[in-house]
Amino acid sequence: MDTRLQHLRNLFQEQSLDAALITSVPNIFYLTGYAGFLIEEREAYLFITKTDAYLFTNALYLDEVKQSVRHVTIREINRYQPITKSLEELISKHALKKIGIEDHNLTAAEYKSLSSLPLTIEALNLINLRVRKTPDEIEAIATACAIGDKAFEHIITQIKPGVTEKEVAYGLDLFMKHQLADSSFRSIVAFGKNSALPHHVSNNDRLLPNTCILMDFGVKANNYCSDMSRTVFVGKASDADKKVYETVLEAQKKAITYIEKALAANQEISGAAPDAIAREHIEQQGFPTYPHGLGHGIGIEIHESPRLSPPSQSVLTNGMVFSIEPGIYLVNKMGVRIEDLFAIQENKLVRLTNASSQLIEV
Amino acid sequence: MDTRLQHLRNLFQEQSLDAALITSVPNIFYLTGYAGFLIEEREAYLFITKTDAYLFTNALYLDEVKQSVRHVTIREINRYQPITKSLEELISKHALKKIGIEDHNLTAAEYKSLSSLPLTIEALNLINLRVRKTPDEIEAIATACAIGDKAFEHIITQIKPGVTEKEVAYGLDLFMKHQLADSSFRSIVAFGKNSALPHHVSNNDRLLPNTCILMDFGVKANNYCSDMSRTVFVGKASDADKKVYETVLEAQKKAITYIEKALAANQEISGAAPDAIAREHIEQQGFPTYPHGLGHGIGIEIHESPRLSPPSQSVLTNGMVFSIEPGIYLVNKMGVRIEDLFAIQENKLVRLTNASSQLIEV
Repeated sequence: MDTRLQHLRNLFQEQSLDAALITSVPNIFYLTGYAGFLIEEREAYLFITKTDAYLFTNALYLDEVKQSVRHVTIREINRYQPITKSLEELISKHALKKIGIEDHNLTAAEYKSLSSLPLTIEALNLINLRVRKTPDEIEAIATACAIGDKAFEHIITQIKPGVTEKEVAYGLDLFMKHQLADSSFRSIVAFGKNSALPHHVSNNDRLLPNTCILMDFGVKANNYCSDMSRTVFVGKASDADKKVYETVLEAQKKAITYIEKALAANQEISGAAPDAIAREHIEQQGFPTYPHGLGHGIGIEIHESPRLSPPSQSVLTNGMVFSIEPGIYLVNKMGVRIEDLFAIQENKLVRLTNASSQLIEV
Repeated sequence: MDTRLQHLRNLFQEQSLDAALITSVPNIFYLTGYAGFLIEEREAYLFITKTDAYLFTNALYLDEVKQSVRHVTIREINRYQPITKSLEELISKHALKKIGIEDHNLTAAEYKSLSSLPLTIEALNLINLRVRKTPDEIEAIATACAIGDKAFEHIITQIKPGVTEKEVAYGLDLFMKHQLADSSFRSIVAFGKNSALPHHVSNNDRLLPNTCILMDFGVKANNYCSDMSRTVFVGKASDADKKVYETVLEAQKKAITYIEKALAANQEISGAAPDAIAREHIEQQGFPTYPHGLGHGIGIEIHESPRLSPPSQSVLTNGMVFSIEPGIYLVNKMGVRIEDLFAIQENKLVRLTNASSQLIEV
């Protein structure tokens, strides 16, 4: 944890910052190791100067945090001692002139309140703070992936005409809960033409024979996420369905092969290049291109750096973990997405999800 | 939904607003009926003028939202047409001069970006937008509460020495998932001295004989939340434990009776008054006061208006749904919290959670 704080402090120099105010729950967890704060509410602030670090939280968390976070000074905030007052005192004590904020997390109200203090506030670019994972972090993601693989194996035994999308989605969640793990996001289960909607909310539609099922789900275990998508067919897949499926699978393979070859040749790999390769293959086969990026980084959050997409500025290097998930969506007909997670370790692309991606007819 | 939009527009007058930019996922759900957006990411903006309403979202959601939201114009945002550009066009088209924002939700980056547009931006106070529930909403919360009651009945059959906090927490979650419902927040299960930490994160501690278990959990069903806490004893509760338990239960009863009587007498009930009554009883019995409010409103979110706490400005009236949850926390020893949900309907206090709150020894 101390190394992580130091890594953050190294970013101060470039912007001549005296301190940073960290507000996002994932970054607070990454820097303190405490995972108990709610995403929906503002329950803590982490304030890091060049020499010290303070975690501010309310009375509900105080004793628990004191027991588990040892390398940071814990301070209470309450209605008599709000965060602005605490920061004002530290700013005066340490003679701080310029602080960095997470401008995509700090709220407008908090920003306005901070603006009343005698200091300069600047956005701190933390997009790459967590982008290179340690072997321990990659192992945690791999553990989540392994539970996801088993959840998939389990759920295909449960898929029968008459079942609803919601029942299948909850079936995935139940499997994870039985492993004392959680879903990393609301499991997407889409039957037939619903599979053409990339972020479909599972409903009470019943499964009909001879249709497809798109499942996109992830596991959260030990605070790290997995993510995978599979599309399976109930009854016999038609030749047209097979063409769609094989095109998506081949697009994924082409992107994987590109990255593998570039790594072996020590070439720089932009996040845009594999996306372009997968997209081109799908278009060449006469299908519409997917309305999302080819992939995203993953870790403490389900969507992180790097990005594999047309406008991506990412460069894919060692320690990064990301999805490769091309898709074809034929509105009012059907959709196919195949998503796997990969890590780059020692200049090799390592597959973390291992469930079969061959066309499955159940 | 149209009534809800109109209700929001009624707030424009007071601040001479021409429009409002709604960004929080719960408010977007409340005003559009679409529940698919993620809390963790900015996937949609709802822009409401005096005559029109526009929902902006990305390509991933576009077709799904078009199918389910009919009373609002759906527009795509993407890297060529970001939200600021779309708003700029609407501001010019409708000659808008002043817009309201959710300043506790809009980010600093978004705020700065909006500030470049030729208009005045003001915080819109939406704290009471959802505070008075319709009978349908109260019924949805009651449904979630009924699942919670059953989850509690189920879990006390699973509590045996040797089980871990995590296993009990997942046992609650599993029960909910079997009912095709979700937990409304991370279930809190705290054994022994962990129960003195109000927001304890359940761990692998094993249950010992002759200890207490504090469980605080909620259900989310049909997008509405429940919330309840129970403290049970494994083996025989000591006389000291019984005194703590009965004091908390009596504090809750006193707060309930106060509200019931005030409703019957048509007196105004502040959110601070029942809190003071419960707190006073606990202090009179020689115990420390709880480090949280007596209660909170609940609905689409787990914590909403009104607040039952010392600084509360709320007035409790018809249509409100809230928790009453006094507690006693004896650090390094044990803690007890008893939490139930209530609605005010037709000037009566209606209990929504119905699991027994008598002292249970398992």
